[in-house]
Amino acid sequence: MPLQSIQEWPRIEKAAFKTKIDRLQIRLKRLQRTAIELEIPVIILFEGWGASGKGTQINRLILDLDPRHFSVHSILMEKEEEAYRPFLWRFWTKMPARGRMAIFDRSWYRRVHVDRVNKTVPKQSWQNAFNEIAQFERTLADDGTTIIKFFLHISEGEQKKRFRRLEADSATAWRVTKMDWRNHKRYEKFVKVSSEMIERTDVPHARWTIVPADQQRYATLKIFETTIASLQGAIRRKRRRMRSDYKPRSVRLRKVTSSRLDKANMNQALSREDYRDMLRPLQDRIRQLEHRVYQERVPVVILYEGWDAAGKGGNIKRLTQRMDPRGYEVIPIAAPNDIEKRHHYLWRFWNHVPKAGHIAIFDRTWYGRVLVERIEGFASEAEWRRAYREINEFEAQLTAARTVLLKFWLHIDQDEQLRRFKERQAIPDKNWKITEEDWRNRDKWDDYYQAVDEMIFRTSKENTPWTVVEANSKLFARIKVLRTTIAAIEAALG
Amino acid sequence: MPLQSIQEWPRIEKAAFKTKIDRLQIRLKRLQRTAIELEIPVIILFEGWGASGKGTQINRLILDLDPRHFSVHSILMEKEEEAYRPFLWRFWTKMPARGRMAIFDRSWYRRVHVDRVNKTVPKQSWQNAFNEIAQFERTLADDGTTIIKFFLHISEGEQKKRFRRLEADSATAWRVTKMDWRNHKRYEKFVKVSSEMIERTDVPHARWTIVPADQQRYATLKIFETTIASLQGAIRRKRRRMRSDYKPRSVRLRKVTSSRLDKANMNQALSREDYRDMLRPLQDRIRQLEHRVYQERVPVVILYEGWDAAGKGGNIKRLTQRMDPRGYEVIPIAAPNDIEKRHHYLWRFWNHVPKAGHIAIFDRTWYGRVLVERIEGFASEAEWRRAYREINEFEAQLTAARTVLLKFWLHIDQDEQLRRFKERQAIPDKNWKITEEDWRNRDKWDDYYQAVDEMIFRTSKENTPWTVVEANSKLFARIKVLRTTIAAIEAALG
Repeated sequence: MPLQSIQEWPRIEKAAFKTKIDRLQIRLKRLQRTAIELEIPVIILFEGWGASGKGTQINRLILDLDPRHFSVHSILMEKEEEAYRPFLWRFWTKMPARGRMAIFDRSWYRRVHVDRVNKTVPKQSWQNAFNEIAQFERTLADDGTTIIKFFLHISEGEQKKRFRRLEADSATAWRVTKMDWRNHKRYEKFVKVSSEMIERTDVPHARWTIVPADQQRYATLKIFETTIASLQGAIRRKRRRMRSDYKPRSVRLRKVTSSRLDKANMNQALSREDYRDMLRPLQDRIRQLEHRVYQERVPVVILYEGWDAAGKGGNIKRLTQRMDPRGYEVIPIAAPNDIEKRHHYLWRFWNHVPKAGHIAIFDRTWYGRVLVERIEGFASEAEWRRAYREINEFEAQLTAARTVLLKFWLHIDQDEQLRRFKERQAIPDKNWKITEEDWRNRDKWDDYYQAVDEMIFRTSKENTPWTVVEANSKLFARIKVLRTTIAAIEAALG
Repeated sequence: MPLQSIQEWPRIEKAAFKTKIDRLQIRLKRLQRTAIELEIPVIILFEGWGASGKGTQINRLILDLDPRHFSVHSILMEKEEEAYRPFLWRFWTKMPARGRMAIFDRSWYRRVHVDRVNKTVPKQSWQNAFNEIAQFERTLADDGTTIIKFFLHISEGEQKKRFRRLEADSATAWRVTKMDWRNHKRYEKFVKVSSEMIERTDVPHARWTIVPADQQRYATLKIFETTIASLQGAIRRKRRRMRSDYKPRSVRLRKVTSSRLDKANMNQALSREDYRDMLRPLQDRIRQLEHRVYQERVPVVILYEGWDAAGKGGNIKRLTQRMDPRGYEVIPIAAPNDIEKRHHYLWRFWNHVPKAGHIAIFDRTWYGRVLVERIEGFASEAEWRRAYREINEFEAQLTAARTVLLKFWLHIDQDEQLRRFKERQAIPDKNWKITEEDWRNRDKWDDYYQAVDEMIFRTSKENTPWTVVEANSKLFARIKVLRTTIAAIEAALG
């Protein structure tokens, strides 16, 4: 076990420390500046024993950094807002923008460490957390984030001494709790759990550094040296990538042999009379379910993708028409704004993940990565290729948090699209809906068709299937979406 | 009293209703589209009796609107996050972007209505809220926001009937609480309080509409007609403004006769030895105060403005160097991003108002409105002129919530600035700090000087004084900021 291998607790004399630390601080400051210029996001997290000096070391580390470019986050027990969302939600939303630094005093590792030992989360949660953490860190690292992880390790005797010292001073006595002493008595248990955590999550793109911290000066130097080396590596890698003068380009696609879209029966339709009879009862039903979903704290995510003019807006309207507006939110996704551009493409969607009991309806989604960004070359081939896996993992994390996830592809054929484009141009009230870009996209119909086919093929998993909605008849499409949604929510409520 | 004047509760027959509402829905939908195009932000709020049908009417209103362009907010009792901030914080952060619509089921009027009667806030709070609400609505209206306010009024007998009906059905019985019955028994008290609220807050730019709601159909039509008329008015006004082809331009300034800046003694300095001796004890003191501020839940806002190269960054660094990073945040203010541009200029600062017990340090601030935006013509003369009042009101709202507010103007003279610019250009490590823009701003020194003088003169109030920090000596400036901050926090803690 990695933590047991430490036999000696190294010491550093004060004079030697002073000389070294001054130089390291200057270097770190310069590297921060370079990381800002190169737009490298940096995460530095601190885990470790109680009273191992996490707070002190964080203070020391940031002492000379430009405070406009970092944030420090203390990760405590989950609050209600957080517990009602997937485990990683509170961390995704704190991710640093490109060029910024986020420093964590405890982190997502709480769950597989203190929260595990203190049994504040069920076994299944912390077991699953190991997978989710691995996915999380890899997803960030692939996107260029530097992740530096410290485990501050002190000996059993040292911990006891520090607790006693804190208790002796009336100003700090409150900081030592019963839980601290209880955990102290479980020192061996913590050695085991910490070692397992470190072994299972020590990966090339997010290495752990165990810091022997009985002696503060030694620990400080080790933290500085590690941080500096990591930043230097990140800067080197980033410069290399920039020199390679990479230009994304769009990729011609070959036809998928067995197409899900080809199989859609585009002749399905519905008379206006039948539609009228069906609509209201389904809308009443979804309103009832909305209340049950709230009472039983089930999160629901409904996402819409589809061809231009496939009728997404009207479909969403019929879905929500009789719902209680306090229970759902429609999230329209346009091109990313400048803050969103400075983050991982999934970041803005994590920010909209609904609280348990609420319904989030996305009008366009994270699938833009493998559709428009792929076709238009906004994402490189490596980027959109790995997006399938990232999206599958993201959605698996949603469903692991009991989310009912519905994915609708609104499908029309080329003739129907042309008819609607022309209609829109002819009707003054609908004129605004059609732009030059729509016509340009239409020219790329075949490319999009292949991309959609591949998307559906690669991202239909057991709990996250796509529903292809035959939408040449808008009426048919609306009823199908309502029915599918109702069935899925009913199944989830049991 | 406005509510007592209603003697008859008008009725509408079903057939007549159907004909009218269909037409009104189509008109409202078109107006929403136009408001989006013209980028008009719209607020529609619903207050009224328990069981007066607020939820039902909101549903009806949004039935045909495009759900991608509005949000519905239910305003409940304050949560901790909200109670630890100034009263209006939770509303400012929910303000719609230009072109969006925010619909409130209860609103900021809670405080002078149900919360007042139920005594969930102290008397001073709801009394003060009347002023803050008046300022809030005027500030938004001046910026082009349309504010539509409905009070749903039902008779005492009707309320009793509705409560009984809800209780009779097991699915809705839970909605009628003891508090509802208690409030029902205080019907007359509520008539008085509601009437007072409506009379005191019925202003031309944010009119109340009292909706007799015993009969639902009548109420629905009244709400639609009022909303439509308000939107038409807003659209007319906006088009008129656009036609007038307004172009902001920068304004030449005349010298203020009695200048605060002229009086600054720019020769004040400090030897490096004295600085060293003073710095550490002051930094230790501010760290102690940071903890007391947290324990006693005092919010602190420290803002920095100053000439380019006046040393803001270094000053902030010395201020925060030994502070606990979990207790403060540095908020650097750059040019507004595209989301911020779609809101009132104060919106982004409201989003950063610290929770009680925390310290927010702003590196540049809302004063940009009367400095760079004024000089460069980004704000019209009317806009920056009214900004003095808006800023004074904003800061008064902060201090009313017990915030310790410190405002530092870092002042250097023209010679010193030139020296620093040249030094920055010469030193590779500081090179990035100096840009073409800095030189351009320098050419406008005299304009800025007048604008700063006027700013200090107009926005120094009893609890919100400016401190001019003589910063030709950086060391002197750092000590002065530390001392001033310490003294202000000590005074606040008593």
